[in-house]
Amino acid sequence: MTPVTAAERSDAARNRERLLLAARELIEQSGAAALTMDRLAEHAGVGKGTVFRRFGSRAGLMLTLLNDSEAAFQARFLFGPPPLGPGAAPLDRLIAFGSERIAYVLEYGDLVLAAGNAPRGRFEVPAAALWNQHVEMLLREAGFDSPEPWLMAGSLNSTLDPERLLHLVREHGVTSERLAISWRDLVTRVAGRA
Amino acid sequence: MTPVTAAERSDAARNRERLLLAARELIEQSGAAALTMDRLAEHAGVGKGTVFRRFGSRAGLMLTLLNDSEAAFQARFLFGPPPLGPGAAPLDRLIAFGSERIAYVLEYGDLVLAAGNAPRGRFEVPAAALWNQHVEMLLREAGFDSPEPWLMAGSLNSTLDPERLLHLVREHGVTSERLAISWRDLVTRVAGRA
Repeated sequence: MTPVTAAERSDAARNRERLLLAARELIEQSGAAALTMDRLAEHAGVGKGTVFRRFGSRAGLMLTLLNDSEAAFQARFLFGPPPLGPGAAPLDRLIAFGSERIAYVLEYGDLVLAAGNAPRGRFEVPAAALWNQHVEMLLREAGFDSPEPWLMAGSLNSTLDPERLLHLVREHGVTSERLAISWRDLVTRVAGRA
Repeated sequence: MTPVTAAERSDAARNRERLLLAARELIEQSGAAALTMDRLAEHAGVGKGTVFRRFGSRAGLMLTLLNDSEAAFQARFLFGPPPLGPGAAPLDRLIAFGSERIAYVLEYGDLVLAAGNAPRGRFEVPAAALWNQHVEMLLREAGFDSPEPWLMAGSLNSTLDPERLLHLVREHGVTSERLAISWRDLVTRVAGRA
């Protein structure tokens, strides 16, 4: 094997980013179910072999997309601009956290379910622990005076369960706006009047 | 086939009740995982064949136990004595509802999970709809003034998800008392200060 040069590594990273960007565009246009390796290759203007070499399989592509989205979401609530990130009032950050989770679940739909149901969900479990920690911190900052903020954070997060949200949207026609309003109502009652 | 007489039917019903009672005793003593057809036959003092004729399989026995428990629970929150049943203040009924669900999930453990994960959960789905309806009614009676009491009822019920409760108990050593206190805290904040 010839050694990989820095320029080649940088090319590879750029190609990866371009493919992920194209994949996100396709999901935005037609939903995650419509995202196939063929359509991605076509949309990105590359050969199908390139897409398979990069992600291995459709499942690999999906996991990469989810991991990237989750990492981006974590960066936003930890370090990003308010109201999701630091700088806003804790209650406003809580409200933003739920709205963004709801939007994320509705955008990625079945992908999130598939990742959550995967055996040994390496990705979902640490993420859920981090969300809980984050919500617990915001509850404390908001002056939540119960002895069990960690349990309450878990309860609040359980209302954002992807399967539940998708069921409400698909079977009952509930909009993301109504879900976000109901979340705001919930956290305001729990944290806002503490 | 010889026709079944009224006396025979009545005998069969009594035998069924006796077997279910013995099964509940075994669960109370050693947990649901320890309940086998062999142990049930031994504990009830009947032949193993009788147990299999009655319930078909261990899964059939479990489903019968759960259906009976669920029906009994429904009867209690719909028609039973306060605070779970009518007559108590709506907030007290809400608190009792969660405590009883928590106790039920911890008692039946994996059985509840197995029933919930069964394809086309004929039993779980209508039950969940009835619980939602019940919690929504109590929220309204408590003067809950949001435009979406049905969504809030669903959110509250999602915190009682069996998988979540069992995870907290088994992986984090949370007691049923702490879970019940956290539920009381949640519904008091949501409904009690509406």
